[in-house]
Amino acid sequence: MKQNLNFTALGGNYLFSGIAEKIKSFKKNNPEINLIDLSIGDIKLPLSGAVTSAMARAALELSEKETFRGYPPTRGYGFLIEKIIAFYKEKGVTLSENEIFISDGAKSDLGNIVELFPKGSKVLLFTPCYPAYKDVNIIYGNKIIYAFGTKENGFKPKPPEDENPDIIYICSPNNPTGNVLTFNELDCLTDYAKRKGAVIIFDSAYGGFAPKGFPSTVYNSENGKTTSIEINSFSKLAGFTGVRCGFTVIPEILGEYNKMWLRNRSAKFNGVSYITQRGAEAFFSEEGRNDSKNKIGYYKENAEILKKALKKINLWYNTVNASPYVFFACPDGFGSEEFFDKLLNCAGIVSTPGIGFGEAGEGYMRFSAFCDRKEIIEASERLTSLF
Amino acid sequence: MKQNLNFTALGGNYLFSGIAEKIKSFKKNNPEINLIDLSIGDIKLPLSGAVTSAMARAALELSEKETFRGYPPTRGYGFLIEKIIAFYKEKGVTLSENEIFISDGAKSDLGNIVELFPKGSKVLLFTPCYPAYKDVNIIYGNKIIYAFGTKENGFKPKPPEDENPDIIYICSPNNPTGNVLTFNELDCLTDYAKRKGAVIIFDSAYGGFAPKGFPSTVYNSENGKTTSIEINSFSKLAGFTGVRCGFTVIPEILGEYNKMWLRNRSAKFNGVSYITQRGAEAFFSEEGRNDSKNKIGYYKENAEILKKALKKINLWYNTVNASPYVFFACPDGFGSEEFFDKLLNCAGIVSTPGIGFGEAGEGYMRFSAFCDRKEIIEASERLTSLF
Repeated sequence: MKQNLNFTALGGNYLFSGIAEKIKSFKKNNPEINLIDLSIGDIKLPLSGAVTSAMARAALELSEKETFRGYPPTRGYGFLIEKIIAFYKEKGVTLSENEIFISDGAKSDLGNIVELFPKGSKVLLFTPCYPAYKDVNIIYGNKIIYAFGTKENGFKPKPPEDENPDIIYICSPNNPTGNVLTFNELDCLTDYAKRKGAVIIFDSAYGGFAPKGFPSTVYNSENGKTTSIEINSFSKLAGFTGVRCGFTVIPEILGEYNKMWLRNRSAKFNGVSYITQRGAEAFFSEEGRNDSKNKIGYYKENAEILKKALKKINLWYNTVNASPYVFFACPDGFGSEEFFDKLLNCAGIVSTPGIGFGEAGEGYMRFSAFCDRKEIIEASERLTSLF
Repeated sequence: MKQNLNFTALGGNYLFSGIAEKIKSFKKNNPEINLIDLSIGDIKLPLSGAVTSAMARAALELSEKETFRGYPPTRGYGFLIEKIIAFYKEKGVTLSENEIFISDGAKSDLGNIVELFPKGSKVLLFTPCYPAYKDVNIIYGNKIIYAFGTKENGFKPKPPEDENPDIIYICSPNNPTGNVLTFNELDCLTDYAKRKGAVIIFDSAYGGFAPKGFPSTVYNSENGKTTSIEINSFSKLAGFTGVRCGFTVIPEILGEYNKMWLRNRSAKFNGVSYITQRGAEAFFSEEGRNDSKNKIGYYKENAEILKKALKKINLWYNTVNASPYVFFACPDGFGSEEFFDKLLNCAGIVSTPGIGFGEAGEGYMRFSAFCDRKEIIEASERLTSLF
């Protein structure tokens, strides 16, 4: 029986599956300790009532003959696509309905999009980065090259002029570093892609966290549309981690990629649940948007509280406040997995070791601030009393 | 910019996207004609109240902090996996929780599963067959070989002894022919796979339509577990075409394939909506199962009504009553696309031309019986008055 041997090059578990295993085993052995989970970027606060009541209504519609709906359109329902077009309009970007594809979340599309490129393509990753970028390209058989983030370059490494990548993954606001690209930096990257004939896969899952005066979409750059596919998600914008909805933008000016993606989705996907799409539509209501704005503000405050604790214990951290993540350095002499264990065993805090985001993350850690304020305060106290 | 050139070998639109375009244009030009759509196998009857109220409840749970849920488990929620294990127990098959992966529908997994095999694998298709099998393997860069169905072999061609396929797609009850494998035929196929060292991808989306005395899962065969991955769906079983849920079974005895799939799903997927999984769980309630049984009976009766009309106009059809599909021959001298046009233009009926299921389908047509009885009767009347 033949196997895709690329899997053997992956090594170990997917990052967050491995952490989940560690949590499970710790809980089993220490049932009395109340763990605070600041690892995976999962939402802990409930959904907006506008969203859940829209989904409940949509579910009930499906039990009536008059309002039942079968297969959704491959690209997604017009009612949702319209709202996304208006959302981009606010950002100063004009999109047409043929440029938007509703997905079951950014992660699926960040992986499946590689099928538009020939196997063996050269992929540029700015590390540390979301581990799925690497995993899916290894599975597909692509070659990966790195631009290495360091404290010295502010974890904003320059793209390599001596390389010719075919695909470039960019995430801004960034997971895990928390950085956000400036308009000028974004222009430099899309210009680089244009010169190199590369396609940018722009992960804008954290676009809602971009502060005023910073781009929240790659299409805020002049060369954005001619170089970039944008992959977006309602997970962090509207708390949809458990609901699964996102969307991918492929500008028509990117010609064949738009057509290939439609062909790909028609053959390998059957659209997103009607119920889910009605929920996503409701995110765009006044109530939904306000709820999102408030929660994003809340999570950013959470991040600031964690940073204050890190300051007290003299650990370096990225001061940029543009994401739900706190990226910080391990104490001297600690590797990131070692410090993960110390935080787990001595403070009951689950973090993410930087090495999980690539070698450039070694010596660093990530906290997710997608938590209840009480947990964040408790974690801060545990942190400061650790040293 | 580099492109995956395999897309150019696909030719044209995905079958049902192409038909959807034709319908759209016909409706525009003939707004007065009431089209009856017997093409794509989409559900027209509403969902069971047990399912929709479970989904509505689950949606509302997500707006409360105490009952909110974030990322679903990669393999799916235990509450649903348990029910699937019990469902297979009824069929005489024992599965463990690690062998089941909840998906967003069979179509996604039928496509993504090819990633477990090296590019360039040899894929055996029994044609006519579901067009996505071919499309996804072309996109991936696999080589396709065919076992050709004909009226003479009852559209049950033998697998080729002089070939050594790596992957074999099997669908029973079959789309589009409506055939169902006997236990003996299934044993011959799994034995063939075992001898050839091939993996069977068993599409059991229509398993609910298998009559008593016929297998509804590949694991009813002795060599099933050592040779086969089963891909299943709630679409036809519970009317979930618009809800998107299915599941894939990879026996642990298939070793690496189970592990690779978990690794693949962890990197490229984030699970299925909590709401959807609660809906699928409710399908397994007494109310849900009864509703499914009644609807499957209803759709099969629909198919018989259509067959009576075909008999009246002297067209050959497959008499087996084990699926929601009616597979029948075009009148002498008609190609399947030509007859598609005649049915559309002269009877206002949308069918699926056999050529869409591969060359072996040329000269044949498929009707889907997933309709309201009134439409089926009207279609039968239009058919008989066509000649």
